[in-house]
Amino acid sequence: MLLAAITTVFLAAEKQWMMLDWKPKRPDMLIDPFGIGKIVQDGLVFRQNFSIRSYEIGADQTASIETVMNHLQETALNHVGSAGLLVDGFGSTPEMCKKNLIWVVTRMQVVVDRYPTWGNVVQVDTWVSASGKNCMRRDWLVRDSKTGEVLTRASSIWVMMNKVTRRLSKMPEEVRGEIEPYFMNSEPVIAEDSRKLVKLNGSSAEFVRKGLTPRWSDLDVNQHVNNVKYIGWILESAPLPILETHELSSMTLEYRRECGRDSVLQSLTAVSENGTDEIECQHLLRLEDGSEVMRGRTQWRPKNAKISGNVGQIPADTA
Amino acid sequence: MLLAAITTVFLAAEKQWMMLDWKPKRPDMLIDPFGIGKIVQDGLVFRQNFSIRSYEIGADQTASIETVMNHLQETALNHVGSAGLLVDGFGSTPEMCKKNLIWVVTRMQVVVDRYPTWGNVVQVDTWVSASGKNCMRRDWLVRDSKTGEVLTRASSIWVMMNKVTRRLSKMPEEVRGEIEPYFMNSEPVIAEDSRKLVKLNGSSAEFVRKGLTPRWSDLDVNQHVNNVKYIGWILESAPLPILETHELSSMTLEYRRECGRDSVLQSLTAVSENGTDEIECQHLLRLEDGSEVMRGRTQWRPKNAKISGNVGQIPADTA
Repeated sequence: MLLAAITTVFLAAEKQWMMLDWKPKRPDMLIDPFGIGKIVQDGLVFRQNFSIRSYEIGADQTASIETVMNHLQETALNHVGSAGLLVDGFGSTPEMCKKNLIWVVTRMQVVVDRYPTWGNVVQVDTWVSASGKNCMRRDWLVRDSKTGEVLTRASSIWVMMNKVTRRLSKMPEEVRGEIEPYFMNSEPVIAEDSRKLVKLNGSSAEFVRKGLTPRWSDLDVNQHVNNVKYIGWILESAPLPILETHELSSMTLEYRRECGRDSVLQSLTAVSENGTDEIECQHLLRLEDGSEVMRGRTQWRPKNAKISGNVGQIPADTA
Repeated sequence: MLLAAITTVFLAAEKQWMMLDWKPKRPDMLIDPFGIGKIVQDGLVFRQNFSIRSYEIGADQTASIETVMNHLQETALNHVGSAGLLVDGFGSTPEMCKKNLIWVVTRMQVVVDRYPTWGNVVQVDTWVSASGKNCMRRDWLVRDSKTGEVLTRASSIWVMMNKVTRRLSKMPEEVRGEIEPYFMNSEPVIAEDSRKLVKLNGSSAEFVRKGLTPRWSDLDVNQHVNNVKYIGWILESAPLPILETHELSSMTLEYRRECGRDSVLQSLTAVSENGTDEIECQHLLRLEDGSEVMRGRTQWRPKNAKISGNVGQIPADTA
């Protein structure tokens, strides 16, 4: 079911397993060629600092959620690039190449304790782990580089897709053999949000924006809409009073379908308040014919609220 | 006429003259507090390097024009921040504050000889100069930091606006006295495009996109649409075959009106070909009531075309 339903393509996915060719015995190979990141912890964690730029902050003067997600994408790709192997933009492992397989992201969970502001420097760590029989997990931990304060935790699940049939695939044994040595043995950096994501429809969603189309600059090198852009569309149907008074504290996204230049989307949102200051929203992005593109759930806290982050969930070995 | 028509607000404009308080006699004050740029050439030029990130490249695998413009904005703001005076987001000179004046951008000219790709490092220089009785000019020169090759040149014109009445203002003598010492004495980095920008209308424009609205993430800290976002809207009405086969080589923009969260825009484009491979487009952004937001002209060259840039126009003292 899951395997049949998900056809999202994400550029990073198709590249990230080039890191399989890491040469942990040759430290000179581990230096990021762009001078903007490095491998730490026995070659299994990639670390990069980002200075927040003026155009990465929004109306609140803090980094936008898209900026946070961009930094996650950048480190995932540089994690691969740091091995000096970013030659083929669609790089899979040798066994994956033989079988026409690429990686696609299916699920993303993000918890933001605090958004950095212009001029802040954040330190992003990323690593990958096993996840069930057919999946891979990629985690991120974002800290204030000055204080070490945890700002963001994110966890994502990836599966394999046949790039010709666009159908999901089990992970072949040969591929597992290739990639297993590179997995960190660690718990997810966020406890899994196991609540089912609701499927909204026209009557259950109070807020609907129709006719959303990609801009030319939303497309990535695959001529697909980059997965980070989906978040902007989700927010398109979130009511303005929430955006003005609250900030996104966490989200769970399920990617189900890719979008291209000509896609026309509808963004649906339902809001539920639980009597506290926190607000929860359910989201659906769908094509005009009703096909689901993404389901999501977001939590919002009042701006300037004090954070009671659950830092106990962070594996000590990633600090 | 010009003074009455132009009411565009640009965040950078309101901040950039804080650099008036530079203390060139105290070199410790000249270091950029974010560690991402520095003052060179006797305190009159600000220089910053940017590593192009994966999310700053588009379908062509090169930096998008928005990325180029973002880097220009960032250096203009850091030019100010480098003086350590970025306290008031609306910083004007003391005399401007007294008179409720802010800076607004009215004209922007950009020539792109080559777009950098992911991992390239670009070096951006920016400085300001006098421009007529009531204006200020800000120029930028972007180079490949490795080879010194000139990638982009840009020149912009700024005037003063009363932030209460939203009307343009002459430059008071007291303000001129404050800012004049900080002007570079140099020719514009691009020869002025003196051809009048055509005012398109429904019948002269072959391509029209209606109903364009700002996304939440398009707003800057002033709750206005950031001027860089206007370029995305211009491209919305440019025909896809041009975007697919050509790249933007130069543009001239005239900003005439600010946009807010609720603005609904129309983007108009007219294409003229002159028998060569180069294409020229005329553009208009307008509100639904017809009010002009921006006029523009863009030139496009075939992708992968050889560049014959006119580097002779670059003042030697900025190299």
